[in-house]
Parts: sequence; structure tokens; C-alpha cells
Amino acid sequence: MIIVLKPDHQEEDLHRIIRRLEDLGLRTHISKGEQRTIVGAIGDERLLREVPLESLPGVESVLPILKPYKLVSREFKPENTVIQVDGREIGGNQLQVIAGPCAVESREVLEEIAEELVPLGVNFLRGGAFKPRTSPYAFQGWGEKALKYLAGVRERTGMLVVTELMDPRDTVLVCKYADVVQIGTRNMQNFRLLTEVGNIDKPVILKRGMSATIKEFLMSAEYILAQGNEKVILCERGIRTFETETRNTLDISAVPLLKDLTHLPVIVDPSHAVGRADLVPAMGKAAVAAGADGLLVEVHVRPEEAMSDGPQSLRPRVFRQMLDDCRKIARAVGRDL
Amino acid sequence: MIIVLKPDHQEEDLHRIIRRLEDLGLRTHISKGEQRTIVGAIGDERLLREVPLESLPGVESVLPILKPYKLVSREFKPENTVIQVDGREIGGNQLQVIAGPCAVESREVLEEIAEELVPLGVNFLRGGAFKPRTSPYAFQGWGEKALKYLAGVRERTGMLVVTELMDPRDTVLVCKYADVVQIGTRNMQNFRLLTEVGNIDKPVILKRGMSATIKEFLMSAEYILAQGNEKVILCERGIRTFETETRNTLDISAVPLLKDLTHLPVIVDPSHAVGRADLVPAMGKAAVAAGADGLLVEVHVRPEEAMSDGPQSLRPRVFRQMLDDCRKIARAVGRDL
Amino acid sequence: MIIVLKPDHQEEDLHRIIRRLEDLGLRTHISKGEQRTIVGAIGDERLLREVPLESLPGVESVLPILKPYKLVSREFKPENTVIQVDGREIGGNQLQVIAGPCAVESREVLEEIAEELVPLGVNFLRGGAFKPRTSPYAFQGWGEKALKYLAGVRERTGMLVVTELMDPRDTVLVCKYADVVQIGTRNMQNFRLLTEVGNIDKPVILKRGMSATIKEFLMSAEYILAQGNEKVILCERGIRTFETETRNTLDISAVPLLKDLTHLPVIVDPSHAVGRADLVPAMGKAAVAAGADGLLVEVHVRPEEAMSDGPQSLRPRVFRQMLDDCRKIARAVGRDL
Amino acid sequence: MIIVLKPDHQEEDLHRIIRRLEDLGLRTHISKGEQRTIVGAIGDERLLREVPLESLPGVESVLPILKPYKLVSREFKPENTVIQVDGREIGGNQLQVIAGPCAVESREVLEEIAEELVPLGVNFLRGGAFKPRTSPYAFQGWGEKALKYLAGVRERTGMLVVTELMDPRDTVLVCKYADVVQIGTRNMQNFRLLTEVGNIDKPVILKRGMSATIKEFLMSAEYILAQGNEKVILCERGIRTFETETRNTLDISAVPLLKDLTHLPVIVDPSHAVGRADLVPAMGKAAVAAGADGLLVEVHVRPEEAMSDGPQSLRPRVFRQMLDDCRKIARAVGRDL
Repeated sequence: MIIVLKPDHQEEDLHRIIRRLEDLGLRTHISKGEQRTIVGAIGDERLLREVPLESLPGVESVLPILKPYKLVSREFKPENTVIQVDGREIGGNQLQVIAGPCAVESREVLEEIAEELVPLGVNFLRGGAFKPRTSPYAFQGWGEKALKYLAGVRERTGMLVVTELMDPRDTVLVCKYADVVQIGTRNMQNFRLLTEVGNIDKPVILKRGMSATIKEFLMSAEYILAQGNEKVILCERGIRTFETETRNTLDISAVPLLKDLTHLPVIVDPSHAVGRADLVPAMGKAAVAAGADGLLVEVHVRPEEAMSDGPQSLRPRVFRQMLDDCRKIARAVGRDL
Repeated sequence: MIIVLKPDHQEEDLHRIIRRLEDLGLRTHISKGEQRTIVGAIGDERLLREVPLESLPGVESVLPILKPYKLVSREFKPENTVIQVDGREIGGNQLQVIAGPCAVESREVLEEIAEELVPLGVNFLRGGAFKPRTSPYAFQGWGEKALKYLAGVRERTGMLVVTELMDPRDTVLVCKYADVVQIGTRNMQNFRLLTEVGNIDKPVILKRGMSATIKEFLMSAEYILAQGNEKVILCERGIRTFETETRNTLDISAVPLLKDLTHLPVIVDPSHAVGRADLVPAMGKAAVAAGADGLLVEVHVRPEEAMSDGPQSLRPRVFRQMLDDCRKIARAVGRDL
Repeated sequence: MIIVLKPDHQEEDLHRIIRRLEDLGLRTHISKGEQRTIVGAIGDERLLREVPLESLPGVESVLPILKPYKLVSREFKPENTVIQVDGREIGGNQLQVIAGPCAVESREVLEEIAEELVPLGVNFLRGGAFKPRTSPYAFQGWGEKALKYLAGVRERTGMLVVTELMDPRDTVLVCKYADVVQIGTRNMQNFRLLTEVGNIDKPVILKRGMSATIKEFLMSAEYILAQGNEKVILCERGIRTFETETRNTLDISAVPLLKDLTHLPVIVDPSHAVGRADLVPAMGKAAVAAGADGLLVEVHVRPEEAMSDGPQSLRPRVFRQMLDDCRKIARAVGRDL
Repeated sequence: MIIVLKPDHQEEDLHRIIRRLEDLGLRTHISKGEQRTIVGAIGDERLLREVPLESLPGVESVLPILKPYKLVSREFKPENTVIQVDGREIGGNQLQVIAGPCAVESREVLEEIAEELVPLGVNFLRGGAFKPRTSPYAFQGWGEKALKYLAGVRERTGMLVVTELMDPRDTVLVCKYADVVQIGTRNMQNFRLLTEVGNIDKPVILKRGMSATIKEFLMSAEYILAQGNEKVILCERGIRTFETETRNTLDISAVPLLKDLTHLPVIVDPSHAVGRADLVPAMGKAAVAAGADGLLVEVHVRPEEAMSDGPQSLRPRVFRQMLDDCRKIARAVGRDL
């Protein structure tokens, strides 16, 4: 931590800062420049993050030197984390595709969709049982009934189930049926929910908050790892910007950036990012080219009848074409799909 | 709802759209212009919000005509909602100030702060018992112990208690001690929590999500009213923008805009918005001038020792000066404080 | 400047950095912490801003200590700059109001508007002769003819003329008629234009770019001062955010922040910020409460016939009421209007 | 254009609106719904864009039906525009790469860089002679001298010259040396400059403004086409968001979106978007996968000595690897590079 003093600080201010740092068990290093005096705090910087040094008299600014996260960082664990889920790997050389409808609507529609996905080699089926909807009047999901339909499809097809957990009170219920638990964008900083999934023994897909910085995203993952669950998959799904032609702006640079900062797998959800089916394939391809470890894609047999997110759902025929292209691109960058 | 057809749509596409609308019990109105054919859907637009018309062949775009919220709208209830809390009014001619530390740190510090606030005429004491913190390693609040300290101060001083609820599992506990329940910015779209506080009989301060549009903000309030709790106070607290000199950007235009769209009271939290104590007074004054119904301000006797948000907490002396100025401004715009 | 080294840097990397800094005439200060080695560069930091230290092997990050601007900073000139324009002061205790139509449409309409403004004590008349329009098919302004109309009004009423300069080739022409030259938001980083108005002897209103940080805003002002023109008035006019209910988001916190960082006067344009006449008065009042040195407001006698920006123009009656309120608020914060 | 009336509008308001539309030569179509009356204006919508209908009494909102641009739209010209430059094509099946230093620093360094690029099959050399710099104290480019160096390299190598024009007064000078003229992000809405390059007979690369919507971007291109120059190449180069780990956020979804809306070629500049050399290759690959018609990349033989943008410049070895990968991806999506 570097503390920069105001040009007009008092000698006493400097001594107060030094005392404060030494009381915390840190050593200090003073450097008097031509225009500013700076104090370097040597020792465990994390001790200082909780101390409002900016409020001390004479302080102009405080510059952290270290990243605020630890367990998720590549500095802490240099090799890639590869997550095993029932024989499949996420984060390895093989990319994984998670596909399915936004919400589970009925057993029939879900099975119809699954039947399209199995021949394409899709290993993971997504489908919402609990849906976070902007409107209280919108369809909120069928709850446990939907979870049962998902489990039914798993039994018949072997596809693994990915579904969202919205409320800590549903943790046991969701874990009973899900193979992978998803935390949605609006809950990325629902810290109680993060703590909850930090204590389960299932992989967690953590979606980036729609206005979360990369740092905040990693801090939320740190919440989960700090509880002991190291099976976290980060998912970039678009951030909120001024542009309104697309639902969000897919921040594909988050992929190489995260791969640099953390050892966790990184997947991309192009569907929620753009919100328009016609743009989804291009963005899925871009994600693979940029080094993503997988894709999360909304697929529906009849988007015009979907109970949620129809406009961004791909028809199976378009999805198949996209997968074919993604496979070629994966190979071009030395991966498999 | 207006459905705009693509210039190259088929006659059959038009018929399919009309059938779909009529099946939903709506009447249609076709207008063939020089460059586009448009279909107006006449009837209850909310029926259509769930239908993915964009996915129907031949559709170029869909333009809603009505606002998506109802109970919170001024169209539904033209007169201002004035909320009664134990003899005090929020949303009336008198502005209310809610002040106190970010987190309850100890009984002593809380009492010390309260002693400074009482003589200033502050009726509401804020203080966090459960703190949503970006880092899992940061102080998370003292929980029920803190709630008891708050209630203790209420007993001695008559100040009413405002505190945050983060987890639906704590609802009963928090309501046992709080006079007003706060939903934080990170939980504005925690729909389960909104549903929960929609069922309590206490006023709820709903903070705007840091990247929530005004429309989404009102939809979240609608969640609470839809459950039956009409005592919702909206709180603008700064939105996330590209600017980094301030913690967030306080969107003061949200005040007159919300007062136009909704009958609910609107207050402003300048402390979290700017994140720097020296800028808080100017923003508090601006909020009052713009028509806010109250302020939520972080005050601490020793910000340099605060366990959370020290850099943005006002010292009592500065806070008193700010209140004096705000009072004059309130009178200049025909209000009291 | 602080240079933070990577944990795995080589001894040779450190030496290379030291040599590079010493070659530039700077002294260095090495501090080896537990987790990072940092190098402090002592001397004129501005020498380093041009050097891509991040590209040197072994460098993790580079943290500047000083602000990148000098002439505009309060550190360089602690007292407020008060600009004299033909007997009026901008930046003094008295607030100034600049009002008028977006574009000069005709001599008659301009005179009609001016007649409404003079009795209100408005000293500055605004009106565009050259209009930056998003569409090539939109009205682009009447050019010199409009400048002549403005000058005609000045002759009759004594109001001073504020008008925009868009093109360095028009500098002489615009200066022939204008008392104050305005640089629009889209030209805040038109560096050639900034250099041009740095060489004239007239006050310049520099509008904040719609996505400019405060730092960039001040750097653009620095361009003008660096050429010798110290009469710069900064104008906050709303920034681009995700919110679409208002045209832009007025960043009122920019007012106290700029007053802290710079000695230059700061005014606010609430009209372009919100883009809706009904919200303008509240925002004008907020700006005055926050400490602005003046307002720039679009006023039109018949907004529904305006050739540009009608929806955000105030009718004279509404404008008068707003000025009355602003005057009371100005007094409440110890100023005059 | 659809005009939505307020629920409490007067009959007279409706008649006034109809008269106003009919005076403009439009026909009207009234539709009285249960909750709103709407007026459809039939005829040339562009006539209406200049009319402030929102300011008419009784109007709640105005919804445009058509896009505001014409010449650049795919509706106007369905087939792709392929631009010929001295035997090379931009916008055809073959992707084009434009590479070189941010600024032309010296004849020697420029030649050294060009020697690295020629064997890689790069046909276009970029290099700034006039540099838009945030700071007035930063290197501003060598002007004509730099243009001559660029022309010298063209003579020796056959590479075509791409360089930026910042000031309408330099148009003739820059066109004397450049094969392709670039308009930078800060000048995307410098409408005078757009008009100027609308009148030259050279291809123009128009970079997206850093906070420009896709609509505004296309309107700026429309300015150029409206003057008669149809050789416009759109360049996505990152937009400004809240994220600070990267310099900007590369909006790759702009590529398929623009390809849908316009017939003009679309290229991507990953260097300015991310601002960090280590992330550039991933983003270049993503751009190719998403369907870009070319890349604009900063390459320097010694980034640590670059006079501008060193931290984001690729070393030739890294650039070569990136090109190899991009070539494979181009083939995977049916293109050449």
C-alpha cells in the first residue's frame, strides 16, 4: 500500500500515519520526493484494506499494490483448475457446451429440446426452475416440478443438469436435482447466497454481474472459494453500457483477461449478452476464438412460443450450424469441442 | 403495443400475427404506410409483454406504448404517498433525514454518534447489522447484537431505527428491531427478498441498483406493492458510470423524474454516491433543491476509525453545517426540514 | 511515479528500469516488500508520462502520483479565477445565467426571445449559428447571418453573445461577433480547435465531452491555458450512461469536484443534460445548490416550433419561475443571482 | 412515426397534432385504444425528425418507426460494398490487415517496422503523422515529415498508407500522401471534418466514437456518403464502459450488428480497445471469428521505446503468431486472410 501525502501536510500527520501503520504490525518506508512525500507500508496489505487511511489528516490518496483477491488468483495457483463433473471436464482442452431453454416450460417441450441437443454432443442441459424476472407479473418458473423434469431428462439421456439457485432457502432442494448450480447475474453480489454455495459440493457457475468490474467478479468468486468450494466456473454474459441495440455488451476481452488473472475456467453466455438470436452465433464463435472454456446457449424448438427469452433463443438448426463453426474455430486455436 | 413489420414480410406473416393477438383476446389495427406496415394491438398490453412477438416471422420490431409498472405509477394513484412511521411522515412537506454510521461497530460508538444527532433534530438512525461487503475478508456486521444496540438507542432517544435486510432468512429477526427496513443496491433485483418485504408491515427503503434503469427500479418497487406492502420509499444512491473520481455518479435527475412517474416518496443517499466526505454536503444540498423527500447520510464521530465506509462519513460538525444549509434550501423550494 | 515489479522479475529487469529512469534525469528509490518490489521515481513525473514503462520486462504496473494537469490545477493557482467580460464577472460571488434558443432561427424569433430575457436580468444570450447535428439532413445553422442577428440583439439590449465554434476555419468569423466562444461536447477533444481558442483573447466555455472523465476534461482545458488563454469556463452538461429516460445523466458531483481540483469557473447546462423541459428547473436548482457559478439554459418562446432541441427548451414563464427559485437557493448558499 | 397521446389529452390537442402533420404533407391514422390514443404519421418520416412533436400539448411520447440513416443502410443497398484501393479489396472475401506503429517516430524505425510487416503479407501500413493526444505536453506527431516517410515506405515496399486526418485544414496535405484516410474516435462527430472527407476521392476509415451508439456511428458515416464519398470503412475500436482493467471495452457484437444494418465494410482495432499488448491477439482472433472484414493493429519493433501507445503495441514475433491464428480462423468461417 502506498500512501501519498498532501503537499501541505503537517509533520504530525506523517507521524500519525506511521504510528497507525506500525500499530497494525506493518513496517513503513518514507520517500520524500520533490512534490510529494509518500509512505510505503510493508507487510500484509490486506490488513490495511479495512482501515480508512483516506480519512487521516494530511492524506491525499491511497494506492493499493496487490490484488484484493487471493484464492482465485493465478499468483496463488498457477495451473488451470479443471473441474470434473460426472466424467466430463470443464476447463480442460475440450470445450463444453451448455444448452437448453431459458425456463423449463413443460416436460414435453423440455424433452423435445433435449432430443435435438443429444445428437449434437451437448453434455449439459440448462433450464430455469426458478426465474429472476424484472416484472412481478412475469412467469417465475415452475420450481420443484421443473427440477424433476430436468432430472427426468438426465435419466433418459445422460445429459447433466445446470440450473439456477436464487434463494439460500432453496439450496438443498436445487442441489438434490442439479449437477451444476448457477448463480445469476443479479445475484453476483448476493453475498449470503455466495456463502451458501461455498458450502456445497457441486460446481457453481457464477455469472458476472451486469455492472460488475472484473475485480468485483473475482471477489465474488473468492467468497465461494473462501468457504471451501473450489469448483467455480466464471461466466461472462454481457455488461450494461450505453448501447441499446443489444441487450448488453458482451465483454469478450474478459475472457483473456480472466485467464490471465485466475486459474478458474471461463465460459461465455452469448444469448443474454446480445438478446437477439441472429447475433448469437457470431458471438459464440468470437468467444471460442478468444479462448473461452465453454458456451452457455439458449436453444428452443419454438422460440416464438417460449415463456421467457424467446427473442434470443436459437432454433436447433441454427444452433447446429453454430456448433459446427465453433468446432472448426476451437481446432484453429488448439482446442476441441 | 405496436408491431412493425419488415418491408419484405409475407402476407401470411401478417395473418399469423393478427391471429396470435386475437387469440390473446386483443383487437388489432392495421396501418399500411409507404415504407412499413404496422399492427396496433388494442387491449391489455401487459398480456403481450410475455409473448416473444419478435420471434415471429416478418416482425422487425415491437414498441410498447404503456409503462410496464402499474401500482407504483402516478397514473394509477395521482396523489403523493405519505408514509407514517410512529408519528413521523416520509413523503410529506417535511423532509426527513436518516443518519448514522455505515455499520454498527459497538454500543459505545453508536451511542456517541446518536448523541450528536439528536440535538440536530434527526429522527431516524441508520446503522448496518448485516453488511454486504465486496470482500469475504471484510467486516460483515455484528448481526443481532448490532440490532439490539440500535433498539437500545431508540429506547433512550426516541430515534427510529433504519437497518438493512440482506437475506430472506433474517426477515423476522430484522423486523423485530427495525422501524424501517432497507434493501441495499446489490439486492434491488433479489426478487425473493423483495417478495419477502412485500409481506411485512413496515416501511421499506428500496435503494436503486447501481446499474438499474429507472424502469427497472420501479419494477422492483412494483414487486413489493404487488404483495400488498405500499410503504415503499425509493432511494437514489448513485449509478455506475465510467467516471472514477467519485465512487458512483449521483443521478439527481432521478428525483424529479421519479416524482413525475410515481407517487412514492424519493430520498437520496449522497454518501454512497460520491464516496468522499468532502463532496457529500454539496450533493445533499443539490438533492434537496431538486425536490427529494429526505436524505440518508453516513455520519461518524471518528471516520478514520470506522470499520466500514470511513472515507465517506461526515464528522458531526460538518453534518450540522450541511443540515443548516439544507434547511434554508428546503425553505427556498417551499418545504421544511 | 511508482513502478511495481512482477513477483517473478529478474534482477536485470530492475537494473534496466533504474537505468531508464536515471537516463531521464530522475532519481530512484527502491523498496523491497514481502510480496512486491517497488521503484519510486523522484523528480519531474511529467517526463515519465510519455515513456511506456509498462512495456519493460518485469513491470507489473505503473502508478502515477501527480495529476497530469498543471496550469488548471488549484495546486498551481489556489484562488478562484474570476473572468471579466465587458463589465460582467463569471466565477465571482454573483452567478451568471446564459439563456436563449438552441439555434438562431430568424431575427424575429431571436428578438422575441431576447425581449423575454432582458427583464429577467439575464446578461448573456446564447444561440447557435453553426450547429453540430447528428444527422446530415438536419438544420445546420444559418452561419454568419445568425451571428449578425446575435450582434444586432447585443446592440439593442446590451446582452453579451455566447455562440459555438465548430471549425478552426471559422475562428476569426465567430470571434468577430461573439463575446464568449463555446466549444461543444463533441469537440472537447478536438485538440486543434482547443489550440485555436487557446490563442484568442475571448473567454471560452468548454463543455464536458459526453463520455469524458473529469481528468480528460481538465486536460482539454489545459490545452487552452497552455496556449496562453486563461479565460476558460468549464461547463458540465451531462454524461452518457445506461439510463435512457433522460438524454444524458447530469453529473452534479462534477461541480464540487471541479471546484476542488481547479480554480476555473464551473457552470452547468441542465437543458442538454436531461433533454426534457419538465426536468430542467429541478436540475438548474440542484446545480446552484451544489455550488455552480452559473447556468446555461435553453429558452424558446414557442418550443413546439423550434428548429432544434425544442423538447428541452423552457417557455419564458417557466424559466422565470426557475430563476426565482434559483435566486433563493443562491442566497441560501451565500451567493447572488 | 407514432405519436402517443397522454391519457388526459384534450380533443383540441389531437386536432392540433393532425393539422401539424397534414401541414407537413403527411397523412394520419388514428387508433383509439383502451388506455391510449395513438396517431400514426404516414409518409416521409424524415420530415418529422426535425419537428419537436414532444413539445405539443397532449403528447406523451413519439416513437420513430424507421431508421434515421438511409444511404448507409442495407435496406437502401442490399449487397456488400467492396472498396478497391490500388488493387486491394476491403470488404470482399479476403480480410485485410492494417498494421504499423501508433505514431511515425523516425524514418529508421518506420522502415524497420515495415520490413517486418512485408514478409507477413500485410498490405496496409498505418502510422500517425498528426496525433490527437489527451495532454498538450505529449508528442503531437511530426506532421508532413511523417507523411513523407510513409510515402517513402510505400515507394520501396508497395504497402499502402493509412493515416489520420484531424483538421479540415490538413485535408489536401494528408490526401497528397495517404491511400486511406482515417478519422479518429474523438472526431467521429466532428461534422465539418466528416463533410470534408465526404468530398475527397479516397477511402475513409471511420472509427467509432468511444461513446457513440451504433445509430450515431452510422449517422456519421451517412454524413460522408451524403457528400458523395461512398468508400467508407467502419472501424469498431472499443467503447467506454465502467470497466477499467482494459482501456476500453471492445464491442465485438458491433461487427455482426453492423453487417446486418449496413452494406459498408467493418474492421476492428483490438489495440486501442484493450490497451494491453497481451490481450490484443485474443481480441483480433475474436473479431475475425465474428465476421470482421479486417484488422487494424499497432505493431512496433521496440514497444518500450515507442513515443505513443507502447503498452498496446505488439512485437513482430507476437503479431506473426496472431496472424497465423487469424488465418486459420478466417478459413474456419469461410474467408481468407
